[in-house]
Amino acid sequence: MERGLNATREADFANWYQAVVREADLAETSPVRGAMIIKPWGYGIWELIQGELDRRIKATGHQNVYFPLLIPLSFFAKEATHVEGFAKEMAVVTHHRLAVIDGQLTVDPEAKLEEPLVVRPTSETIIGDAFHRWVRSYRDLPLLINQWANIVRWEMRTRLFLRTSEFLWQEGHTAHADREDALAETLRMLEVYRDVAERCLAMPVVTGEKPENERFPGADATYSIEAMMQDGKALQAATSHYLGTSFAEAQNIRYQSETGELRLCHTTSWGITTRLIGGVIMTHGDDDGLRLPPMIAPQQIVIVPILRDRPEDAEVLAYAEGLAAELSGVDAFRQPVRALVDKRPGRSADKRWDWVRRGPPIIVEVGPRDVAAGQVTSIRRDRLWGENERIASTGAPRSEFIAGAAALLAEIQSGLYAEAKARLDGNIRADIRSFDELAAYFGPAAEDDDANEPFKGWVRCTWSKPSGAELDVVEQRLKSLKLTIRNAPLVQPTALGPCLFTGKPGVEEILVARAY
Amino acid sequence: MERGLNATREADFANWYQAVVREADLAETSPVRGAMIIKPWGYGIWELIQGELDRRIKATGHQNVYFPLLIPLSFFAKEATHVEGFAKEMAVVTHHRLAVIDGQLTVDPEAKLEEPLVVRPTSETIIGDAFHRWVRSYRDLPLLINQWANIVRWEMRTRLFLRTSEFLWQEGHTAHADREDALAETLRMLEVYRDVAERCLAMPVVTGEKPENERFPGADATYSIEAMMQDGKALQAATSHYLGTSFAEAQNIRYQSETGELRLCHTTSWGITTRLIGGVIMTHGDDDGLRLPPMIAPQQIVIVPILRDRPEDAEVLAYAEGLAAELSGVDAFRQPVRALVDKRPGRSADKRWDWVRRGPPIIVEVGPRDVAAGQVTSIRRDRLWGENERIASTGAPRSEFIAGAAALLAEIQSGLYAEAKARLDGNIRADIRSFDELAAYFGPAAEDDDANEPFKGWVRCTWSKPSGAELDVVEQRLKSLKLTIRNAPLVQPTALGPCLFTGKPGVEEILVARAY
Repeated sequence: MERGLNATREADFANWYQAVVREADLAETSPVRGAMIIKPWGYGIWELIQGELDRRIKATGHQNVYFPLLIPLSFFAKEATHVEGFAKEMAVVTHHRLAVIDGQLTVDPEAKLEEPLVVRPTSETIIGDAFHRWVRSYRDLPLLINQWANIVRWEMRTRLFLRTSEFLWQEGHTAHADREDALAETLRMLEVYRDVAERCLAMPVVTGEKPENERFPGADATYSIEAMMQDGKALQAATSHYLGTSFAEAQNIRYQSETGELRLCHTTSWGITTRLIGGVIMTHGDDDGLRLPPMIAPQQIVIVPILRDRPEDAEVLAYAEGLAAELSGVDAFRQPVRALVDKRPGRSADKRWDWVRRGPPIIVEVGPRDVAAGQVTSIRRDRLWGENERIASTGAPRSEFIAGAAALLAEIQSGLYAEAKARLDGNIRADIRSFDELAAYFGPAAEDDDANEPFKGWVRCTWSKPSGAELDVVEQRLKSLKLTIRNAPLVQPTALGPCLFTGKPGVEEILVARAY
Repeated sequence: MERGLNATREADFANWYQAVVREADLAETSPVRGAMIIKPWGYGIWELIQGELDRRIKATGHQNVYFPLLIPLSFFAKEATHVEGFAKEMAVVTHHRLAVIDGQLTVDPEAKLEEPLVVRPTSETIIGDAFHRWVRSYRDLPLLINQWANIVRWEMRTRLFLRTSEFLWQEGHTAHADREDALAETLRMLEVYRDVAERCLAMPVVTGEKPENERFPGADATYSIEAMMQDGKALQAATSHYLGTSFAEAQNIRYQSETGELRLCHTTSWGITTRLIGGVIMTHGDDDGLRLPPMIAPQQIVIVPILRDRPEDAEVLAYAEGLAAELSGVDAFRQPVRALVDKRPGRSADKRWDWVRRGPPIIVEVGPRDVAAGQVTSIRRDRLWGENERIASTGAPRSEFIAGAAALLAEIQSGLYAEAKARLDGNIRADIRSFDELAAYFGPAAEDDDANEPFKGWVRCTWSKPSGAELDVVEQRLKSLKLTIRNAPLVQPTALGPCLFTGKPGVEEILVARAY
């Protein structure tokens, strides 16, 4: 039986992931170590995610801006905790000219910068410097901005989309008069992220607060959305940080209150990256390639005309193009349906497999018989296989197919969500009471990050929320099993048992898992 | 008489430009030398330009992608001519880590990169490297891609939007089977740029080919759109390059033809940058600030409620918000009208002036009398002043104002274009026949680039299209007057006189001007 990929999730999940990225033509490694080339199909997904998120960022009162890529080194020295967290992984510009010396193109030693410039690993420092100038009085608050930008963080082990030295993201930065307002903002944007992940990416998540040791460097609180991949591991899909007043203090962001006092601002930051595309792959991909939720599919309906270098080809092509045009006149998810006729040369069976791997929700094949009968034969990518190991296709009168297209796309969108939601809900164990049980359940961790491990899912357990040295002990014990605390879900039970780690009275429930 | 700015175009154009950028709150200089912070109002303009251009780039068959920011130094060594043109102005990453040494945050000397990485000054080299891998056969051609990205070119003298060390742009890169197809692409994208400049930015341009000495480094032909600023200088607003086969040769981009031969591709590249915003300012700004063409105005109708801390405030605010909601339900230029209620605290007269400086096409002030009469009092930003040195406002019944809003915006859009078009057409002298006349007309150039010079406009003259050393002489003579050849317009007369520089028979007409 022909399949879309030469790799399966079961046999080797990491290898399967690479195969999907390659065969769905999403991205490739570049000659620059750790940086990727995002190809049209992958970038198209990112543009749709951007569109959905950008609309929501604006609807919640934020405005887009653009800050410089290169940040003076001295800016990082101002905020000690922050430096500590990022100091090990930044690209540093030290020269501003190349020169030909002894016939070789080289860095011009005479063009050394007085102060090195860091390629932004995140923009709190340079945006905070502007906030210092922009904020004068309580009337200027809240100050709500966002930017779409590229980020560089030197990474030793990279994996396309999931961890790359350069990635694309949005970073929101806001300043508020008090803790309450800043915390409300932090949670508001977490909720926006949850909505985009679940509604658009059909990727169910758990919203919650990160433990102290997993906070953004310098933050008072970090919240995340965590999604479960098909190998049971967790993917942190977005974070939202309440930064307290520490960044404001380091950068002197103060405002005059209504009563005339000079007060420190409370700031927040929050971001989502191209890593999300990795999450989509590992949530919805199958052994034939990618399956895209319709809302973020660059093409929702791909029409493959079956051409045989015969006179009837013209009619087949005209029928396919007429169908695409009519579909573009229909709205799905409040936007015109994205329909494409694949007119490339080549065998239609090869083209069908190419699209199966790329994962548009619906694939239509048009042959002379469809034209004659005025019908449309379509394949649902989310339900590819029918009986007898054959690809399942459905025939419908053309007008009926067009009239039902939007509803079918909506059904596929919610079906993919339901499938992923069932996986998430069904694979969080809540019956583990001791660290020994935890260790027995997850078993020893493989040395190699890419090694295939049995599906375990997550564990939801109670802890006493230790901090400092006591937390370090918990972290190290979990680390020995390659486990981390993902977050403490926002929705908590009313009664709690004792802490799994310390035996003390429980303070909250947390999610423990292996993660990307 | 109160005016929007403390600067006039007449008194000091450079100073006026800075005042508009500042007072319209478009951008500001950053702590990073030569890089700017694009503020919400400026970035909003850029987003609208992006939207209009992106739609056209896709409609002409291109797909968006994303390539790495950092390019290995060796890539630049491959293409000698290209290096020559850019070698003097690149930011170079030499290290990948910071470290605290002797208590000081500094570049970690142990983290020196084996090969320096250049922050992209343009992406031909790294995209060409991918084209080498992606192109196999004639079936893969044309290969049509585009990316929206940030660019760094070290600049010594910078001016916000016009020349900055970092800027935003799109760069299109394409590969074709032959010269004819590549040249057609180059001119197709030039036409897209003309359309966006004239239709959306209301900025008339002349399309034409750059002389040999002004070509993109390594290109066979460079085309530009040139716009006339209100001080008579030219602004190169976009370029489109036919790169011949030289980049393909340097990077080995070859394809197998239908007859089985291995052939070099012909490539193109084309770009438009945030510099366009500088062009909008210098085309449409006046002594009260910016005037925005409605198609690229982040807000098209700004409603200022006149609030006086009295009970009727609530009614005024409700009326203003109802008006904004109704306007948002109307389409202008095929998109919902962008209407904003300015609810910030502060005197309404101050807020009105603030908006006059920022330049939305229509400003509405709502007071209790408007509410009582059910009318709308509006100011057209393009016709700000009425009789007796008073700001001109027009009253209309509310329903009439809403029904006429789209037409009014269209009228303002075409009015701004007509005004700029008349300036361009009326200020190209075509009666200058010798270099002496040219020198006498333009007069000696000021030493300081920012010095205010009398309005001269452009000169259209005939030349023999010299090349090599002969062209160098022409270039130097023009340079002594701070003049450059802008382009040879695509539309040429049928008969030509002798060359203004050499006296030889004329080959084509060119535009000569001082420029940004």
